[in-house]
Amino acid sequence: MTPLTARNDDTFLALDIGGTKVSCGLVTREGEVLFRDSFPTSQWPTPVAMTEKIVEKLKNIWTNADNGRRPKALGIGAPGWIRPKEGVVVMAPNIPGWRDVPITRIMSEAMDLPAILENDANLYALGEWLAGAGRGSENEITLTLGTGVGGGLILNGRLWNGSFASAAEVGHIPYDPWNGTICGCGRRGCLETVASATGMTRVAREWLAQSRETIYKGKPEEINPAIMFELARRLDPMSLFVFKTAGEALGLALATIFNLLSLEVAVIGGGAAGAFEFIEKHILETLSERLITAHIQEIKVIKGTLGLNAPLVGAAALLTAAGY
Amino acid sequence: MTPLTARNDDTFLALDIGGTKVSCGLVTREGEVLFRDSFPTSQWPTPVAMTEKIVEKLKNIWTNADNGRRPKALGIGAPGWIRPKEGVVVMAPNIPGWRDVPITRIMSEAMDLPAILENDANLYALGEWLAGAGRGSENEITLTLGTGVGGGLILNGRLWNGSFASAAEVGHIPYDPWNGTICGCGRRGCLETVASATGMTRVAREWLAQSRETIYKGKPEEINPAIMFELARRLDPMSLFVFKTAGEALGLALATIFNLLSLEVAVIGGGAAGAFEFIEKHILETLSERLITAHIQEIKVIKGTLGLNAPLVGAAALLTAAGY
Repeated sequence: MTPLTARNDDTFLALDIGGTKVSCGLVTREGEVLFRDSFPTSQWPTPVAMTEKIVEKLKNIWTNADNGRRPKALGIGAPGWIRPKEGVVVMAPNIPGWRDVPITRIMSEAMDLPAILENDANLYALGEWLAGAGRGSENEITLTLGTGVGGGLILNGRLWNGSFASAAEVGHIPYDPWNGTICGCGRRGCLETVASATGMTRVAREWLAQSRETIYKGKPEEINPAIMFELARRLDPMSLFVFKTAGEALGLALATIFNLLSLEVAVIGGGAAGAFEFIEKHILETLSERLITAHIQEIKVIKGTLGLNAPLVGAAALLTAAGY
Repeated sequence: MTPLTARNDDTFLALDIGGTKVSCGLVTREGEVLFRDSFPTSQWPTPVAMTEKIVEKLKNIWTNADNGRRPKALGIGAPGWIRPKEGVVVMAPNIPGWRDVPITRIMSEAMDLPAILENDANLYALGEWLAGAGRGSENEITLTLGTGVGGGLILNGRLWNGSFASAAEVGHIPYDPWNGTICGCGRRGCLETVASATGMTRVAREWLAQSRETIYKGKPEEINPAIMFELARRLDPMSLFVFKTAGEALGLALATIFNLLSLEVAVIGGGAAGAFEFIEKHILETLSERLITAHIQEIKVIKGTLGLNAPLVGAAALLTAAGY
């Protein structure tokens, strides 16, 4: 590694609390991930146990990595309902026991470092914007295809939180509001019902339940986007249909977003973006049909490049924007 | 009128070029309309004839109104495709002959005043934000229900133009993207097909064509939102259905907008907003069902208060933001 300049020298600790795993890392201001480690969330059954272990791991990172030099601050990503300004996780539906956890105060006191909390999809978007597929863009949205469809919006080169610190809730943009499937949220035909990893899996199971043509030989309960990605390469009709449906729904939602905000770039990240090569064409076709305020040639829809590192990289952007 | 302070003394000329009429006015920085006059667009068959007459009328305004004191600048609103930075009306589909008209240069030279061009729906939104229903809000959208459904977005107290100076194109947010009526734009199920004045009229004519129950006795080609407003007061099933449909579509679109941007306020303006009292309930019901990021109690959906003055008032906000 080449010697770092004084400014490049700045590092941040990053923490991403997810429903299935927790990631800790050390990142530079420019978004280089110097160190990352992940652990299953289920390993830590309570917030108290989890935060104690995280503190241990974060202290370990900073004494072992980067020659023990002190990071400037800690950026924390969390799912569910959070209050970023108060630093509180109000409720994380996928993490048992997480209710009204003042995570920022807990971590800040334990680490003796300033800390900031942000929605995990927003951190992901900040990461792709700082050092990933959205790098250099002024106005960008990142969609993450995971358990749900998350979003993070960059306007004028800054994360957009809006009036209630809850913007970029894209997963429930209506895809088929009058005839679509009921979403986990109780509403009809949300984007998530077909474009999240969960939604893609659901569409596949419906296909299987109807005994339609497929080369998939496994059990319906074992199908997932990663398997369908392999099957799509062998032109499996079911997998191609699932990705087409997801792409059309994403294209429709992105058209609304582009028409409303006149953005330059949409980044598609999250686990199920692994199938981007099969989804992309359908996104662009639908988007092109529905775009009013720009030509399809002027905008970009690209696959995220940072994967699991994205939220950690985003912590560097978040903390830099906050003045650290 | 109480004596004005030096700052309050500032006035601006305002010009709103519409498909059916052209309005000229003199407004204060705070958005008070000191003078307004309107003329049928059809009176002036070519851009050259129109701009000459407008110059005459604007000069007349400033010599006769406000004791002949010099306004600081001219704000121009125009429909269709415009390039605000270049000051060019690229194409105004509803005004014959308007193609590549450098309206800003023409008016600025003739009036010897700085001039700025903006989309008419954006000016309308700026007006409602400066001195109308959206006054005091940081994050707001205004929807105008006219020939189409226009929009203007205020983010952080400033007009949002986005990367391609073409944001807030709300009229084509899908209302029923898979089964809806084909819109004038060629796409299926756009908001405009049911929520613009034209769309409401179309829905009513469909009702009449099916000989469904109504107290309307006139010809199908003469029905319009103003007539339906009167009929709705007498509980006409057709008119109530038309406004319910418009309200549901507006609620669905506003839910997407609020979920995406976490705004505080939506202002509903334009001619067909006259029926707001019959539309409002359906907007709020659908919005409430579809809102993810805020509670319905936290946000406001209100009728615009400025009417025909809104774009002229908006010129004051536009020019102030530009430093005049």
